[in-house]
Amino acid sequence: MSDSQRLGEFDLIRRFFVRDTPAGTARRDGYGGDDPAAGIALGQGDDCALLEPTPGWQLAVSVDTSLADVHFPAGAPAEAIGHRALAVNLSDLAAMGARPRWYVLALTLPDIDPEWLTGFARGLHALADRSGIRLVGGDVTRGPLSITITVHGEVPRQRALRRDGAGVDELIAVTGPLGGAHGGLQAWQAGARDPADPLLVDFLWPEPALAAGEALRDLATSAIDISDGLVADLAHVCRASGVGARLEVERLPLAAGLGERLGEAQAQQAALTGGDDYVLLCTLPESVRDRAQARLAEVGSHLAIIGRTVGEPGIHGVPPGRVGWQHFDVEVDDHPETGAAP
Amino acid sequence: MSDSQRLGEFDLIRRFFVRDTPAGTARRDGYGGDDPAAGIALGQGDDCALLEPTPGWQLAVSVDTSLADVHFPAGAPAEAIGHRALAVNLSDLAAMGARPRWYVLALTLPDIDPEWLTGFARGLHALADRSGIRLVGGDVTRGPLSITITVHGEVPRQRALRRDGAGVDELIAVTGPLGGAHGGLQAWQAGARDPADPLLVDFLWPEPALAAGEALRDLATSAIDISDGLVADLAHVCRASGVGARLEVERLPLAAGLGERLGEAQAQQAALTGGDDYVLLCTLPESVRDRAQARLAEVGSHLAIIGRTVGEPGIHGVPPGRVGWQHFDVEVDDHPETGAAP
Repeated sequence: MSDSQRLGEFDLIRRFFVRDTPAGTARRDGYGGDDPAAGIALGQGDDCALLEPTPGWQLAVSVDTSLADVHFPAGAPAEAIGHRALAVNLSDLAAMGARPRWYVLALTLPDIDPEWLTGFARGLHALADRSGIRLVGGDVTRGPLSITITVHGEVPRQRALRRDGAGVDELIAVTGPLGGAHGGLQAWQAGARDPADPLLVDFLWPEPALAAGEALRDLATSAIDISDGLVADLAHVCRASGVGARLEVERLPLAAGLGERLGEAQAQQAALTGGDDYVLLCTLPESVRDRAQARLAEVGSHLAIIGRTVGEPGIHGVPPGRVGWQHFDVEVDDHPETGAAP
Repeated sequence: MSDSQRLGEFDLIRRFFVRDTPAGTARRDGYGGDDPAAGIALGQGDDCALLEPTPGWQLAVSVDTSLADVHFPAGAPAEAIGHRALAVNLSDLAAMGARPRWYVLALTLPDIDPEWLTGFARGLHALADRSGIRLVGGDVTRGPLSITITVHGEVPRQRALRRDGAGVDELIAVTGPLGGAHGGLQAWQAGARDPADPLLVDFLWPEPALAAGEALRDLATSAIDISDGLVADLAHVCRASGVGARLEVERLPLAAGLGERLGEAQAQQAALTGGDDYVLLCTLPESVRDRAQARLAEVGSHLAIIGRTVGEPGIHGVPPGRVGWQHFDVEVDDHPETGAAP
């Protein structure tokens, strides 16, 4: 292939990601997308996008790379790959209680497959539209399939949810079921391809808890999204906040179909350490529990209380042998009978 | 390698990119870097960075991926790779007249080489410090060497330099010599490794024209950074602005050592189409030329006038056979004698 063809193709690819100009806004550049109502003074097509942050709000920024066959199976449906690459980034905004605004996409592609690109863009755009986030810039290069997205959200000043605010003797809660993504990965690897399989849905189509994150602002004392696994992410909160945690593992909400697929013991392990569930883990004082439940109910969510913070450092209450492979920043006490380290 | 080792290593890697906390600011997270003076309410170590954009300014955002052996030689000095990956992104801020503020880094590494990482981080941090931009977040994954950086700058509202503002009968100018990066790439491929070789320096250590970009605000009618090559980037400006251009190729400022290395004809071709020079190309009315020269002199830069915009679409004045391989969005007339397309 000549260089001339290459550039022509990449110009073509960009067009998969250019959206219609919203009604009432001018096409000021070659691509469209300028939208003062969305805080976009200049969209794709210049050296930079120009954005108008909201006065009095802070800008929340996060970046994540999704690599084929590391973070998702290269053979997964293109639409799910597009959805998931954005979802894992939006989940970071959810964990801060931030409202999605703008994102940029760096896409590395091994080849030009219009059918694949159409599916990928459809999955990406559908979640973006539903989440209120707009693509404002990007870069396309040729190489092993890799998707890097930088998301920008906004949160009123001083009101972001953070990892470092948990106090002692607060409730520990999650906004959704656990272990589904791990179960779905195992199912995928075992050859499951039924798009209605609930575990495959959990794995391939994670739903960022954006509404729950905003609802928890001013109520939760800390929050994080569960990407590394419940115990690992709880350890991040404990370390940042200077507290410990006691889990009640029998109260962990398990993903639908997980027990049937893995058996009870493996299901509990998946819920504790599986990762990629992208529900929120938070802490909150008992006094705001009812208000938090009411707010979450309004957005179709629910808090499952799974433990309490304690003064003693470490994660307590995890049954022996349930920790798995994670590398922890704080010590995990999985010998609850003795309280001794393994 | 076990997963446990993998996570431990990536935790280690992140530490290459964590800077000392500035004096007088609290370490509110595990990593440090919070700095209210720099508009950083919360730095690395939570799900998102929290930033404080300047009221009344617009946020300029751009993303670029640098892939090994596509955008830079994998065997280049690590320090140069770190410098260059950030420089090509800062150049997009320069082209808008924006002031650098914050960036996030997505790094994909084939393996963990502390010596390489130390060099890479040194090159990255040195340019960041010099440019006034702060690393506020990142992601590290394992795979073929790839660096994706998203930069954030700020520019007073309505005052950004854009591609679409050029008028007819304005001067076309560049802020620095051309063709050096192309000459440097050829030199590298021919085995040149002398770090003092001026063409290698042009190629491996491009200097984003940040001060020139800010100086050109309110004077230049359009600007772009030369990444694809002079003719290609001038074509972008012409297309966005609805004008044509007539170049005076004998006035193109050639990079030091380029003529000696390539010969006159090839040097001119490199200046016209070489790419990766990262100087600014701008248009400006003749009436502001002296003011622009004075402002640029203050920041140690200079405008070389290389042509004029014209009403007739296309790029005129390019000698026959000098266009090279680029795919153009506007027609390039390289038969100046007849005015006919090739």
